[in-house]
Order: sequence, then structure tokens, then C-alpha cells
Amino acid sequence: MKKSLIQFCKDLYPVYRSLTGKGVRQTLEYISNIVPFEIKTVKSGTRCFDWIVPPEWNIEEAYIVDLSTNEKIVDFRDHNLHIVGYSVPVDIVLTFEELDKHLFHLENLPDAIPYITSYYSKFWGFCLTYNNYKRLDREGKYHVVIKSAFKENGELTYGELFIPGKSDKEIFISSYICHPQMVNNELSGPAVLTALADYVYNLKNRNLSYRFVLIPETIGSIAYLSLNHTRLKSAVAGGFNITCVGDERAWGHIPSRFGNNISDKIAKHVLHHTAGHFEQFSWLDRGSDERQYCAPGIDLPISSITRSKYGTYAEYHTSLDDFNLVTQKGLEESLDVHKKCLFVFENNFKPKLKVLCEPQLGKRGLYPNISTKSSGKIVRNMMNFLSYCDGETSILEIAELCNLSFFEAYEIYEKISQTDLF
Amino acid sequence: MKKSLIQFCKDLYPVYRSLTGKGVRQTLEYISNIVPFEIKTVKSGTRCFDWIVPPEWNIEEAYIVDLSTNEKIVDFRDHNLHIVGYSVPVDIVLTFEELDKHLFHLENLPDAIPYITSYYSKFWGFCLTYNNYKRLDREGKYHVVIKSAFKENGELTYGELFIPGKSDKEIFISSYICHPQMVNNELSGPAVLTALADYVYNLKNRNLSYRFVLIPETIGSIAYLSLNHTRLKSAVAGGFNITCVGDERAWGHIPSRFGNNISDKIAKHVLHHTAGHFEQFSWLDRGSDERQYCAPGIDLPISSITRSKYGTYAEYHTSLDDFNLVTQKGLEESLDVHKKCLFVFENNFKPKLKVLCEPQLGKRGLYPNISTKSSGKIVRNMMNFLSYCDGETSILEIAELCNLSFFEAYEIYEKISQTDLF
Amino acid sequence: MKKSLIQFCKDLYPVYRSLTGKGVRQTLEYISNIVPFEIKTVKSGTRCFDWIVPPEWNIEEAYIVDLSTNEKIVDFRDHNLHIVGYSVPVDIVLTFEELDKHLFHLENLPDAIPYITSYYSKFWGFCLTYNNYKRLDREGKYHVVIKSAFKENGELTYGELFIPGKSDKEIFISSYICHPQMVNNELSGPAVLTALADYVYNLKNRNLSYRFVLIPETIGSIAYLSLNHTRLKSAVAGGFNITCVGDERAWGHIPSRFGNNISDKIAKHVLHHTAGHFEQFSWLDRGSDERQYCAPGIDLPISSITRSKYGTYAEYHTSLDDFNLVTQKGLEESLDVHKKCLFVFENNFKPKLKVLCEPQLGKRGLYPNISTKSSGKIVRNMMNFLSYCDGETSILEIAELCNLSFFEAYEIYEKISQTDLF
Repeated sequence: MKKSLIQFCKDLYPVYRSLTGKGVRQTLEYISNIVPFEIKTVKSGTRCFDWIVPPEWNIEEAYIVDLSTNEKIVDFRDHNLHIVGYSVPVDIVLTFEELDKHLFHLENLPDAIPYITSYYSKFWGFCLTYNNYKRLDREGKYHVVIKSAFKENGELTYGELFIPGKSDKEIFISSYICHPQMVNNELSGPAVLTALADYVYNLKNRNLSYRFVLIPETIGSIAYLSLNHTRLKSAVAGGFNITCVGDERAWGHIPSRFGNNISDKIAKHVLHHTAGHFEQFSWLDRGSDERQYCAPGIDLPISSITRSKYGTYAEYHTSLDDFNLVTQKGLEESLDVHKKCLFVFENNFKPKLKVLCEPQLGKRGLYPNISTKSSGKIVRNMMNFLSYCDGETSILEIAELCNLSFFEAYEIYEKISQTDLF
Repeated sequence: MKKSLIQFCKDLYPVYRSLTGKGVRQTLEYISNIVPFEIKTVKSGTRCFDWIVPPEWNIEEAYIVDLSTNEKIVDFRDHNLHIVGYSVPVDIVLTFEELDKHLFHLENLPDAIPYITSYYSKFWGFCLTYNNYKRLDREGKYHVVIKSAFKENGELTYGELFIPGKSDKEIFISSYICHPQMVNNELSGPAVLTALADYVYNLKNRNLSYRFVLIPETIGSIAYLSLNHTRLKSAVAGGFNITCVGDERAWGHIPSRFGNNISDKIAKHVLHHTAGHFEQFSWLDRGSDERQYCAPGIDLPISSITRSKYGTYAEYHTSLDDFNLVTQKGLEESLDVHKKCLFVFENNFKPKLKVLCEPQLGKRGLYPNISTKSSGKIVRNMMNFLSYCDGETSILEIAELCNLSFFEAYEIYEKISQTDLF
Repeated sequence: MKKSLIQFCKDLYPVYRSLTGKGVRQTLEYISNIVPFEIKTVKSGTRCFDWIVPPEWNIEEAYIVDLSTNEKIVDFRDHNLHIVGYSVPVDIVLTFEELDKHLFHLENLPDAIPYITSYYSKFWGFCLTYNNYKRLDREGKYHVVIKSAFKENGELTYGELFIPGKSDKEIFISSYICHPQMVNNELSGPAVLTALADYVYNLKNRNLSYRFVLIPETIGSIAYLSLNHTRLKSAVAGGFNITCVGDERAWGHIPSRFGNNISDKIAKHVLHHTAGHFEQFSWLDRGSDERQYCAPGIDLPISSITRSKYGTYAEYHTSLDDFNLVTQKGLEESLDVHKKCLFVFENNFKPKLKVLCEPQLGKRGLYPNISTKSSGKIVRNMMNFLSYCDGETSILEIAELCNLSFFEAYEIYEKISQTDLF
């Protein structure tokens, strides 16, 4: 991707996103200029398993005026998180007491605007910092204006990109585009996914096919699955849900429901050999679209790699989840880890040695001719690798049996592939 | 059961029980007045697998008179443990040296009368406290009288109660009624079993059938199995051997031969969530009728929950195993744990969610409409539970996957059962 | 074996061995006078899987003369390790600088002559102690003489002994005879193997057949397998590769490729109950003929028990691997452990109790008639053993379930076998 990951985030930071609406379309258009995502729609009101796609929601203005000073004390144009997502339109004058029921703030993070939504219940509200809230005149009158609109015949918008490879088996990669003006959760996911899609799109000789989706969280993945789950169930060989991959503080792995599919194994192997320490979460710690992709009866073999996971960092779901938290380095490292995972998927063969007993490496220039007390680590690793090439054990399994990374093991595999031994 | 558990023990404490005889019948009659146990018999001399039912044995009197003082120095009427079980009749005058070969005492527990039997070898003997033994005149003469009788055409007596349920699959619960005048080992087992039978008998809508047996230990279970093992093998879905369940000091689990049947799992789960700490014994620590029920070729899927286990407490098999050790509270807690185990057996379904992907809890009144940073633990547990409802995982397994007790998980199951989701 | 193990090693210590040649034949002739090994040959030039049997190599003389003093400063007759194995013949005068490229020594072990070979690359060289090397005149001239000869139509020589038993299933035991003038690695292996073969040869009523082979390492096992692997694959039920079994310092277990075959289990059980502590190596620590016997597609179920393992002790592959390291006691203990392993192979039945429920031990004289508070450990072990005699669990498995050694368990098995219970 020509654009840097951090610039991608900065470009999309001001765009107001919600489950549906113009911001989502604008975001997808921006991305489809980088890699050719198709922009697709599901009509509002469509039944998707247990859910119904909500009306499309758009907002123009939202503010509160203190009538004693005539100043806008809260304005959606200052920060998108000021408005509760899917707020109904209002134009009303209220006392502080009446207004207070619609205000959200965080006493323990007095400079943070919280992120609140009310998708499935008619409501309106504003979010503001506690410091701002404290200053409000308890005796004042307030003019509240929300110019929002629900479109019953609107649409839910999402992006999809299919990149074919030699095999019909596909790797499924998903992130979400419904979160407004926060960076780790969630512009980091779309950024890394877009760069990963760009990388795969430009790969030559793909062994596998790839499917990338950018959807609104929960209702988006449910809508997408209701349209595609039967086909996906037979096609998907692995994949990842990408979320919270932008900071440099931590690494984590969120497993699938039973924690032992091939994507879980690859994610853990790559994290172990790349990040060193990482937090092993449990299925009980889940919270993003793996909830749908790994649901009973859906059971796609996907997994999830994160940096500071949703729900675990102080800035989570507030205006403090910004560019102080997310960095180019953090994003790049996450992209690199996901690329490495795809490399494992592409190359995880089960090599079979063509000769019985140990092959004679010497005559193939792979072994020192003089045997001395210290035999080299390189030869040792090669012999260890070969000792497991029974045609039933994958390179990933061999790597783990030999205390090697997949990449070290694959390097040995490639070297030997140039001889007559495989 | 209307009678308290401790009163049950107190009522039966003075009744002299052995493998066979009047005391066993009297005990069973007492119990069948509480729940309608059938009193059944096996004839003395009947071959049962490798064993032969011994003659019925009854005793009227047993004492030793010191001829120098003409006082009864030991009398079976004072404490039933004074007589070695199955002693042959004698009426003889002996020196101390001759008598001494027939006396049993415990130097390390000088106030305890030990419990000794000689079922399969002709013998007579008396048990007495070491303090009493010490006082005996080493130069004296002693008149020994045992008025006991063997009835070759007698019988072994046992109780059985079958309580039918919707399914033919039955839960098998056993305890033994051959131990004289001791409380933990063993009036606590019959007490808890009787109360449990009474509880099941009065249950409405039993999903499973239940079989309760009260037998003499070892020969009783062997005789019972020789008559019933083929039928039991196909019918028994689980169960417990109940012994040493009367004190408040400890909890323990004695597993089946390979330690992993459904009763083992339920026992361990319930103990973990009820007792907190419990001692995990091994099959090598066994010692009661699980020896027969879990023998090779019998292999009933039963398990055993104890308080202070036989062989592990100082008072074991002595007259000190009395009402200082066993309490109403201890007995009630044991009854409660066994009731909980039966509840798991009755309700351990494999729920299957009717919709694909996460269901929308909001529209069913199961979810808060406003999503805030902290989602409630209740909702979280419900979502965790639902995420495993694939129709292949039992509520017990789901509970353990979700770090819940079966009872918490079942409460969620019931709540959701009232909706259209199952 | 009449000869002591240490005398066996002393007799063969001066015989110069290499992959092929007179020393190997002389060694095998010595051994076949103890047990009737057949001496077999494979022609030089024979293709064996990926390898070709090298020409036969013999050596008469090898020395270096310092021309300034006319003294032999290094002479193969003083110690066989002085010559690099498979050195080509030379008769040449060199400067020190020219000679130096052909000299091997160990600065960190200044009194040790290293062991070096060059089987598959034309080369010549001498090994000497660092102390000797230091004294060489850097300005001197040296006359180098190696009277060696390659015989292209020669042969690789090995020994094989098959000892039939009741079953065609065979135990395969291998060691190697290609190492010159070192004791732990490797006269200890042939010594223990020969004594073990002698022991089996004189056993009455062998349940299993036995095959012993004495071959040159690597090319020998590869040549042997290329001739026999199909037959071995169906016949071999277990076995051991014996190497480095002569000292008293340590015990170790080198597993097969996946570490869980029956020989691995037996080796670990016997080591645990005999040696107490032993080093558990991994397949990655392998280095002897298990590399071939456990190679993919060969997969013989063998394992390896060592004392100080090759590569782990300071004296390894030097002239210091001598009779200061290896002792009669060390060799005897290793022989004993291997005998114990064969005993397990011979007697690892799956006993099945003929009666259902616990048998009545009393009437067979196996149980005390009077039951007292303390039941004996012997009876307990017997009852534990019997409780697993379901006809599906082997004595080795029962022993481990009962915390007994195989030998304790087998003693119980034998005692019970004298009754009607099995």
C-alpha cells in the first residue's frame, strides 16, 4: 500500500461512521481507491437470522446551547463521540435536571468523551468529558438540537474483495467500519486489513484464494453470514478477524470457540516467534465478530490477533483512543504478523522424503565432509527437519517438533527442495 | 424425610447389626416405615460369583466374668463392639493367658473399643478398651459366655427400592447396613440414602428412574450383583455408593476405576462448587462397595462422595465413631450435595440454539438497550452460555467451559427456555 | 557370558576398527566365539537407499618422522586414534606449515587425542594431543608415511544372530563395531549386547524371538535396513540400540521419533524403577543408529538406554574415553537394565480375572482371616492389581496404575496364576 498505515487512519479519522449511513460509504469509497473492494448493500428491514437490518441513520448537526450564555457547550462538529449513535432527532429546551438523563461522562477519566450507542432502542443522548460536565450550570436552561434522520428504505453498506488463487480454498479476513473517531478501536483494523489485501492482491502465484470483508460490527457480520454462510462453511480454510491492532503496548491472541483450529495454531506460533510474549485470551474474552464467525452452526475456522485488546486498556471506547495510542510502528508490526500468518497458510506443506533412512547430504553439498566433535547447528536443524518428513506431518508441526519457527523450517524445506530429496 | 438425619442415626445406634441376622432386618423394617423399601433375602449357602452366602448369625449374650470378683468385666450389652462379629458360641473358664489370645484393644487409643469381625473363619473374641484391658488380673480365672447361633438355612437380608421415572435409565445408589454401633461408618450412609430416597420418591416429573439398595458390605453387593448385574449394566446411567458422610471435618471424592465416568465428573463438579476444597482420592484408596460395582466386567458408572473417609480418621472402626463425630449439620450437607448431584443427572441436557449467530437478546427483554463500557456479568454469562449451545455440548460441559456452576448455568438455560431460542 | 564385561572391552581395545576392514572382522570373530553370531558381508559399491557402501579400507602403518631428530613424533601403533579414519596413503616430506593442515588436536583437552574420520572425502590426517602438537618444531621438515589401502571390491562386514522363540515377533537389538580404541563409545555397546545375546541364547522357554546385530554405525544400519526393512517392519515388536553404556555417572533415555512406542515405555519404566533419576532426552538429541531405525518409512519400534550419552561427556570422541571412565560395575548395571527390559517384553500379558467382583482371597490362602484396622500392604497391592485385571490392560499398565514396578506386579501375577483365578 503506497499510503502509510498511519496516514490511512488520519484520513478516515474525521469521517463520521455508524452502523449505516454516509460515513460508512465514504470510508468504503476511500478504501476501494486503494484496493478494488466492491461496495455492497443490504436493505434496511431485511431479516438476517434473528436480526433485522435497522433503518439507515444519518446526522447533520447535534449540539447543546446554554441559554444563559447562548454558547454551544457541546457540539458534534468538535468531536463525533459527542453524540450517542442512532440518536433520534430533537429540538427542545430543557432544565439541567431533564437534560442530565441524556448525558454520559466518565468521572474516572475526566478528560475523555465516552463512546455510547443506542442502535435498537429509540433514544437520544450526548457524551462529554467529566470536566466539561462539572462546569454545567445546574440551574440553567438548555437548547438541545439533533438533526438526524432514519431512512426506513435505506441500506447497510459493506465492502468485499475476493482474490482468487490456485486453490478454491479461501482465507477469510474481516474487520469493521462502524466505529467513529477512535483509532485503535477501530481504524487500526481497516488499515491493516486494507494493506494486507493490497499485499495479497499484488502477490504472484497465490496457492490459496482470499476474501476480505469490511462490515459494520455484529449486524454487519450477521447480515453477511446470513447471505453467505453455507458457501463459506465449505470454502473457508482459515482466517482472521482484525481489531485493535494499532498500538505498541501488548500482543494478544483471542481464540476460536474451542481454541484449536488451524488459524489458532498459526496465530499462536507466529506470535510466539515474532512478539515473544503475548496474552493468551480465552473464548470467554471474545467481543468482536468472532462471536458470529465462530457461533455454533457457523464455525468458520478463524482466529484473532490483537495488540491492546478491546476492553483491556484505559482509553478503550473513549476519545482518548487517538493518535497518542496508535502509531505507524504499531500498525506496521501488526501488518507484518498477519503477513507472516498468511505465509504459513500458503506454504504449510507436508513434505515427504523420497529416500528411506537418512539421506547422504554430503554428495548434495549440504554437509561438511570432515566430521568433527562439533557438528553445526545448521546441519543439525536440517537433519531434525528431515527426520520428520514422513508426508503426514506439516511444516508447521515439524517446526514445533524441532523448536524452530515456521520460517526457519521453511528455509530448510526450500533448500532441500532444490535437490532430488523431495 | 420427617425425621431428622441425626435422630435416624440415634434410633438405629443401639440395634446390633452384622452381615446377617435380626439386627439387619430390624434396621430395614425401621427404614421401610419411612420410604417403602422392599425387604429381600438371599439364602445362606447360595453361591454368588466367587463367594458363598454365610450362615445367618445371631447373638443373645456375650460377656466375661472375673471369677475372683464375680463381676462382668466385659459385656456385649454395654457396647455392641465388645463382641467380635460372627463369634462362635462358648461357655468356658480360662486363665488370663488363655483368654488373652481372644482379646483386642488399641494401646494408642486407650478409651476406644475396636471393631473386629471374623466372618469367614471360625473364631471367637472380645474387644475392649486398653484402659479396661490393663486392669485385668493377670493371675485371675475368667468365665467366658457367648450365646450366639449360626443358622445354616438362614438368610442374608437387604432392602431395595425402585422409583420409576420417564426414562428407563436409572441412577443406582447404595449404602450398607452391616456395621454395628458406629455412626459415621456406618449409620451416616443409610441415613443420607434414606433421606435421598424419600426426596426422590416425592419428586414430581422425574426424568430418570432410581434404584436404592441397602445391603451388607462386600457379600451383600456381591450377592446383589450376582442376581442383577446383566440388567444393571444396561440400565444404570450413574450413581453413588454412600459411606462416611456424617461429620463436618472434610470432603472427599473416591473415583471409579478409571476415574472419568459421568458420576465422577458430576461428583467433582458439585464438590468443587459446594465444598470448595475436597480431597481427591484415587481408585487405590477405595474400600467400600465401589470395589464390586466398579470391578472388571461389572463396571457400573458410579462414584463416591465422602466426608471423613473410612481409614483416614482416628475414630475409624472404633467405639469413638459416635455422636461426637457425626452431626446433623454434617449429615444435612452431605444430603444436600447428593441432591445436587441428582439435580445434575436429571437436567444435564445438550441445548441447541434455534437461530444461527448470536440471538438478539434485546427484543426478548434479556439485554440492556443502552450499551455502555461495562456490560453486566449476567449478560456476559448468558452470552457465554449461548455461544456453546451447539446441541453437542451438555450443560455440565458448558458450565465448566464458562467457569460457572451447573446451577448457575441451568438457571440461564431455564431463563432462555422461556423464549423461542431453544 | 563367562568372560567379564570389562575383560571383553580390554581384549578388543587394541584391535583397530573402522567402517570396514580387518579389525571389524577380527572383532566379530572374537564375539562369535562367545555367542554364535553369523559374520555377513555387503560388497563395496553396493547401493543402499541413498548411500553406496565405501571401499574396504585397511591400514598397516602411519607415522610422522621429524627429520631433524629422525624420531617418530606420532605413530599409529602408539594409539589408533592418531590416524584420521579412511586416510589415503602418503609418503612425503613436508614443512611444518604444509603438515599443519593435516593435524588435529584439542586445545581445551591438551592430553587428549581427538577421534576424526573422513569416510566420504579423500583426505589424510593425523590426530595428536595439544601438548605434543605444541612441541613440534615450526621450522622443521617432516616425513609422513601412511600405508593404507582401499579395496574397491572389498566388503562391509557385520554380525547377526537370530534366536527363535515361541512367537515370530522379534526383539531387535543393535550396537556398532566401527569405533577404534575408545571404550564407552564404543566397546561398551558391543560388550553389553554380547552378554545380553548370551543370556537370551541360554534362556529356556522364550516367548519372543530375538535378533542381535553388530554393524558399523550409519552405513552399516542403512545397508542392513536396505536388505531387511520390509521383513523387519512386520516382525519387530520392540528393541534397543545400545551405545555408551559403560560408565557409572548417569542414566539416560533417548526416545524414538514420537517417543511413545512400547520400547520407550518399557525403557522409561525400568529406568524409573532401577536407576531412579535418569535424563530424558528428546528425539532432537539422537545421534546413533536410531536415526535409521526410526526414520520415516522404517519406523521400527525401538528405543535407547544410555549411561553418559555420546556428546554429553568431556572425554567423548577422544583417547580419554578409556578404562578410567568405563567400569565393570557400570557395564553390569547396564546389562541388568537391558535384561529387565527384556523380562518386561517377555511377560507383559493382559491378565483377565475369571470371576466377577472381588475374588475371595481367604479361601485360597491369600488373605488374613481376621480383618483388623490395618490391612497389609501386600494384600492391598494384590487387590489393586486384581482390580485392573480386565483382560484389556497389560501388566505394565497395571503396574503404573498401582504405583508398582513391573517386577512387583509380575510377582503378584505369578502368585495368583497358581490359583484358579486366571
